[in-house]
Amino acid sequence: MSLTKKSSTASARVRPVSNGKRKIYFTIGPTHTFNGFDKCLDSALKKGIPSISHRGREFEEVFKHTTSSLKKMLNIPEGFHYFFMGSATETMERIIENCCEKESFHFINGAFSKRFYQTAVDLKKNAMKFEAPAGEGFDFFRAHIPESAEVVCFTHNETATGVSIDMDDVYGLRKSYPDKIFALDIVSSAPTVKVDFTKIDCAFFSVQKGFGLPAGLGVLLVNDRCIDTALELQAKGINIGSYHNFPTMLKTEERKNTPETPNVLAIYELGYVCDLYNKKGVAKIRKETEAKAKLIYEFLDSHSELKAFVKKPQWRSKTVIVAETPRGSADVIKKLSKHGFVVGPGYGEFKDKQIRIANFPMHEIADVKRMLRVLKNK
Amino acid sequence: MSLTKKSSTASARVRPVSNGKRKIYFTIGPTHTFNGFDKCLDSALKKGIPSISHRGREFEEVFKHTTSSLKKMLNIPEGFHYFFMGSATETMERIIENCCEKESFHFINGAFSKRFYQTAVDLKKNAMKFEAPAGEGFDFFRAHIPESAEVVCFTHNETATGVSIDMDDVYGLRKSYPDKIFALDIVSSAPTVKVDFTKIDCAFFSVQKGFGLPAGLGVLLVNDRCIDTALELQAKGINIGSYHNFPTMLKTEERKNTPETPNVLAIYELGYVCDLYNKKGVAKIRKETEAKAKLIYEFLDSHSELKAFVKKPQWRSKTVIVAETPRGSADVIKKLSKHGFVVGPGYGEFKDKQIRIANFPMHEIADVKRMLRVLKNK
Repeated sequence: MSLTKKSSTASARVRPVSNGKRKIYFTIGPTHTFNGFDKCLDSALKKGIPSISHRGREFEEVFKHTTSSLKKMLNIPEGFHYFFMGSATETMERIIENCCEKESFHFINGAFSKRFYQTAVDLKKNAMKFEAPAGEGFDFFRAHIPESAEVVCFTHNETATGVSIDMDDVYGLRKSYPDKIFALDIVSSAPTVKVDFTKIDCAFFSVQKGFGLPAGLGVLLVNDRCIDTALELQAKGINIGSYHNFPTMLKTEERKNTPETPNVLAIYELGYVCDLYNKKGVAKIRKETEAKAKLIYEFLDSHSELKAFVKKPQWRSKTVIVAETPRGSADVIKKLSKHGFVVGPGYGEFKDKQIRIANFPMHEIADVKRMLRVLKNK
Repeated sequence: MSLTKKSSTASARVRPVSNGKRKIYFTIGPTHTFNGFDKCLDSALKKGIPSISHRGREFEEVFKHTTSSLKKMLNIPEGFHYFFMGSATETMERIIENCCEKESFHFINGAFSKRFYQTAVDLKKNAMKFEAPAGEGFDFFRAHIPESAEVVCFTHNETATGVSIDMDDVYGLRKSYPDKIFALDIVSSAPTVKVDFTKIDCAFFSVQKGFGLPAGLGVLLVNDRCIDTALELQAKGINIGSYHNFPTMLKTEERKNTPETPNVLAIYELGYVCDLYNKKGVAKIRKETEAKAKLIYEFLDSHSELKAFVKKPQWRSKTVIVAETPRGSADVIKKLSKHGFVVGPGYGEFKDKQIRIANFPMHEIADVKRMLRVLKNK
């Protein structure tokens, strides 16, 4: 967003100048800001959002608006609570602190599901795991979850490897383990993934991926069972953290408030983008996401050199698409960059061998096609 | 910042439209954005800051720039580390987790110093305290800090009551207790307070007060002694937290990075405002702050009705000025609001009996005078 006359119509453009140098960010997150971000920022500044008190009525309205727009969009039932935190990584820590006295169980198939597991290890819990090789999903029927595990952690969409799990498998497991807390990472699949919130207990995401916002806000949705568990642990004298423990978060949520001064601007922006998504319709967004994903995977399946890292179609993420680059990732990234397309390298050990392409709601099909044309001529 | 032609010169104005409706926020924080915020946001968007990867070279540059500008401004010596977190409240939790195995000691004279204490209680530490009545400072010579206390917590500027402590008292205590970790809250006094960082071990602030930024970033400065303590606790098997424990923060700081996706935009903005402050000179900012504070306290001391809550001049905060409003705070706040001046109510139990006026670097003396004129006619 520029204040010069030249770009005064930026907000009306398909590709806002806000991403600088007319680049299209196909990175996994932070990623391209949503179409309308300039206007959103403009409206926030006009309303004085950066300056309003987080203890006043104006913030209460922002809180109410954002949570109700989110509730509508993700079809979140009554009995869920909306906790705003610093990052999705923080939400992992808070879930373990508040829902697990001794034992947690983790499905791991990449760096982010492993981070959830490691968080539990760091917090001195007995963290157990069921691992799948990178690029693969799980054979859930072979997973034995011990009776002693209090919380079971799933990563719907593994941001590192581009593997997605079928939510029906989670719901299936739920039938076998109805008394355990099911915690769901939807960091890189929200809002595209359709979650039946009656079959899980908590879910979390951050705003710099599918919502196209600047980073700095994590959202944790928890049901009453999570709250009750935290209260039980607290009553037992267990350390469940301080300002961001669930009982404290709940008390402030009831006042449409947060324990600390939160990222007010990001909460406002999240409400704004949820409204836009609701206006368009999440069903339509999901359909478009599938169409774009199909395009990219078909391209990779027919390419002579680049190949989808995830082989089995049922495991392929629709939002994080990982491609193997046999002659190294650097050249491919550079080539795309010359045409204004920014894609990310593979994660961790795959940095030099893969690229990762995001397919979020703000990524337009025309740009996907243009990007693939550049890749084709690679 | 508007994209319409009408406000295209907003960034050149003394009072940017970014605070909406031409209000001047004299609130304690979030407060008025710094003069130049529009331009800062504009430059961030042109550079694509909301979209850049937090694992890439561009972010490394932002990290380096912000920390070095901060280092220069606050005269922070070598051997200190820069940890970016979600809020100042979070930094309290991390200090206790990483620097305290069993016992902490707190100087309490208001809600925020109490929050630090409560954080230690929540984290199951034996938290000890030395309390002063609200509106008063401490007789430091009467404080007995037990040998067993590992960390001593000071709130330089009590945001709730407007009491400031003399840093010389802290340095005096340091001589008597050289082996304890001294933790300093400068949330509502940075960057105006002059801190001798060789005489403390860690300090923290948030950006929505003296830096005039939107909320959503806490900054924690820690020296090697804090790191060593955290490593010792970790080696002992103590829970020092997960992604934001000091050893993990240190490892990522060395790469000019953070463990999670941080509030990249706020880190950029902080560097921008530090540059502006450095350009002006912190000495000049401090002098101006004193002049404005003198003006406000002289006004209160001569007012027939409104009185400074803090009676002793040596305890009076220069940045958070609390006035008693014998006929209730609501009317005073309303009257000021009609003239475009936003001040905050008293904190907690003082909500209806006091107002709080911020005196930060972005508050111009002309506006302070105009605001006082309105108060005079009250």
